[in-house]
Amino acid sequence: MSTATLTLKDQFPGLAGNWHYLDTAATAQKPQVVIDATVNALGRDYATVHRGVYARSAEMTLAFEAARRTTAKFIGAQEDEIVFTRGATEAINLVAQTWGLTNLKAGDRILLSVLEHHANIVPWQLLAERTGVAIDVCPLTEDGRIDLDAAQAMLTPAHKLVALAHVSNVLGSVLDVARAARLAHDVGAKLLVDGCQATPRLALDMKALDCDFYAFSAHKLYGPTGVGVLWAKKDILDAMPPWHGGGAMIDRVTFEKTTYAPAPQRFEAGTPMIVEALGMAAAIDWLDEVGLDRAQAHERDLTATLRRELSARNDVTLFGPEDGLGIVSFALDGVHPHDLGTILDEEGADGSRVAIRAGHHCAQPLMDHLGVSATARASFGLYSDESDIEALLKGIERTRRIFG
Amino acid sequence: MSTATLTLKDQFPGLAGNWHYLDTAATAQKPQVVIDATVNALGRDYATVHRGVYARSAEMTLAFEAARRTTAKFIGAQEDEIVFTRGATEAINLVAQTWGLTNLKAGDRILLSVLEHHANIVPWQLLAERTGVAIDVCPLTEDGRIDLDAAQAMLTPAHKLVALAHVSNVLGSVLDVARAARLAHDVGAKLLVDGCQATPRLALDMKALDCDFYAFSAHKLYGPTGVGVLWAKKDILDAMPPWHGGGAMIDRVTFEKTTYAPAPQRFEAGTPMIVEALGMAAAIDWLDEVGLDRAQAHERDLTATLRRELSARNDVTLFGPEDGLGIVSFALDGVHPHDLGTILDEEGADGSRVAIRAGHHCAQPLMDHLGVSATARASFGLYSDESDIEALLKGIERTRRIFG
Repeated sequence: MSTATLTLKDQFPGLAGNWHYLDTAATAQKPQVVIDATVNALGRDYATVHRGVYARSAEMTLAFEAARRTTAKFIGAQEDEIVFTRGATEAINLVAQTWGLTNLKAGDRILLSVLEHHANIVPWQLLAERTGVAIDVCPLTEDGRIDLDAAQAMLTPAHKLVALAHVSNVLGSVLDVARAARLAHDVGAKLLVDGCQATPRLALDMKALDCDFYAFSAHKLYGPTGVGVLWAKKDILDAMPPWHGGGAMIDRVTFEKTTYAPAPQRFEAGTPMIVEALGMAAAIDWLDEVGLDRAQAHERDLTATLRRELSARNDVTLFGPEDGLGIVSFALDGVHPHDLGTILDEEGADGSRVAIRAGHHCAQPLMDHLGVSATARASFGLYSDESDIEALLKGIERTRRIFG
Repeated sequence: MSTATLTLKDQFPGLAGNWHYLDTAATAQKPQVVIDATVNALGRDYATVHRGVYARSAEMTLAFEAARRTTAKFIGAQEDEIVFTRGATEAINLVAQTWGLTNLKAGDRILLSVLEHHANIVPWQLLAERTGVAIDVCPLTEDGRIDLDAAQAMLTPAHKLVALAHVSNVLGSVLDVARAARLAHDVGAKLLVDGCQATPRLALDMKALDCDFYAFSAHKLYGPTGVGVLWAKKDILDAMPPWHGGGAMIDRVTFEKTTYAPAPQRFEAGTPMIVEALGMAAAIDWLDEVGLDRAQAHERDLTATLRRELSARNDVTLFGPEDGLGIVSFALDGVHPHDLGTILDEEGADGSRVAIRAGHHCAQPLMDHLGVSATARASFGLYSDESDIEALLKGIERTRRIFG
């Protein structure tokens, strides 16, 4: 039914049995190599970083900084532009509360879009409350993309920041980041990109995209929970004031006057997510080995197949553009998404169970725009294959029979 | 040489070989049960929390919230008083940037002490820069304890916060938290306690201590990196405004008006440290099984033994009180702590290597007070035993021979 050719499921201990995981946009399962890297980092190789005079700590420091280089290379950036954060949410909040508080004031404007995840809305609302900055909302095209023509018409010199999702976590819509960057820069604004759903699916090069900030989470990238990345252009990062005070982010502490370390260390107060950073690097190495081009092709194939199969039904409404990447939101007539999700989770006649997401996907403004309170969402990962789609379609058919 | 009786080393894959780890105050090694819990959470059981309609996610949510209950019980608190943070540093910054920004203003004062870790100094300095709050510094007794008599004399109704370490990470000095709380409350101030070095060594009961905020890190508690805890009294936590915006911390998001979830969820924006929280709960279960009373006795024995052995040398200066807990800072005449650390790390005649910490231990004001730029520090964990002390003493003797 599809031409998708990757067969990677065996590498994922979370995918054993006749369980069909279609919630990768929420969080990805982890390949064995990531688990192995975590076990070694927590056990055989465990030590703190940046401080020890003994070899184990020096080696862990090298591994930790190698993880930073691996991460930088993965997105076409320099290592001193990579700040390890807890995840994308913290990365965006860091920008809002350091760069934002320093550079934005009442009268300035921020442009977001209707389809943003709450993580790319609420930090700006909190900033707006504190500074009086105004927030504008870019509409979507009819098929559910961020409408950059509309953005172009809306942008003014009062706009200091544009903050947009690279790939929508609900619709799979892919943003033309390079064009968004040009539009933002034309009015003197910076562009922040929420890359959570893009990093596992698209080969990235920060220089080509030319955005100013890029945020993503490891756990959506086949890596561990508890770690993510803020990338920012070096000159912007260098000018940002500290956010969290503590160990490792200082140069010299006295009660009279404390001075701070250069970026990125200035933004990494305290013992960092050592084990998690190593796990993320293992995930990136794994993903690089698969190849982002194959990853994208694989997800495009699966997405197109699922959209085609669902379109063939006369009781399904599909949301988002035809070429959405890896993520398909839909509604089954007369069945609440939660009921669909619950029935899919029950064992079918063939023993299969299917995990989808049902809800607002942390994108309530988009739900309001679509005129629904929730959607059903199936999302793919590199381990997904046709059997997952078949199980989903069978489950939808079973639900149809139950609901009539 | 000591009466310490715990023999737990075999449970720690990080402690294989003739390697003597005496840097537990920086970070603790992890027992196999913590690694096993991590492996299961990353693999077999992996799913997101709080959002999925499928069983695996519901089970993970139950496990995550059970981890919160385990953590609460461990410190004698209620589960809705536990905020999962990246670590103690983030916990203290959270208090500074939410409670602090809301409640403190120019003219108010904060009391810290000379022996605080940078994580309990710099967040307050950053707050002082933004608010004009003044910082006072409580001196130490001659033997290196926070001088609560001096604190009592210094405290005035202008003081709104007292922030002190429960156990000094350099000297091992133990604070009388209950008395500090009374002194703070007598002038209407809140007491924040940095519990990083206390949680692995002392049985805790927040009700008995009667402080207002308590912060600690899992990685010093035999748990994973990337997770820690802010505990606060419920009424204080409930009144604190949000800090990071994002998913999971909201009630309802619209571009017109966003409302927030109650505490502790209000402070946990984005996908949390799921795997790490489960790992921390496994560490706490393990520690509970050993028993905090035995833990304290074990570390007291080892500390007393090491202090006695070092005192017997005429070329060693010991810092800190006689009854310091688990942590011994010292100087070897004529040898820079870094040189001592480096030589200890080299294989001795018996094949042993010893890992100590040498440096300012993220406590530069204390170093200034002691009149040194660095100390050598040996710190114990529950896996430590007499062989570690013997190896350290032999290493010191070898260093003495090298330096003459």
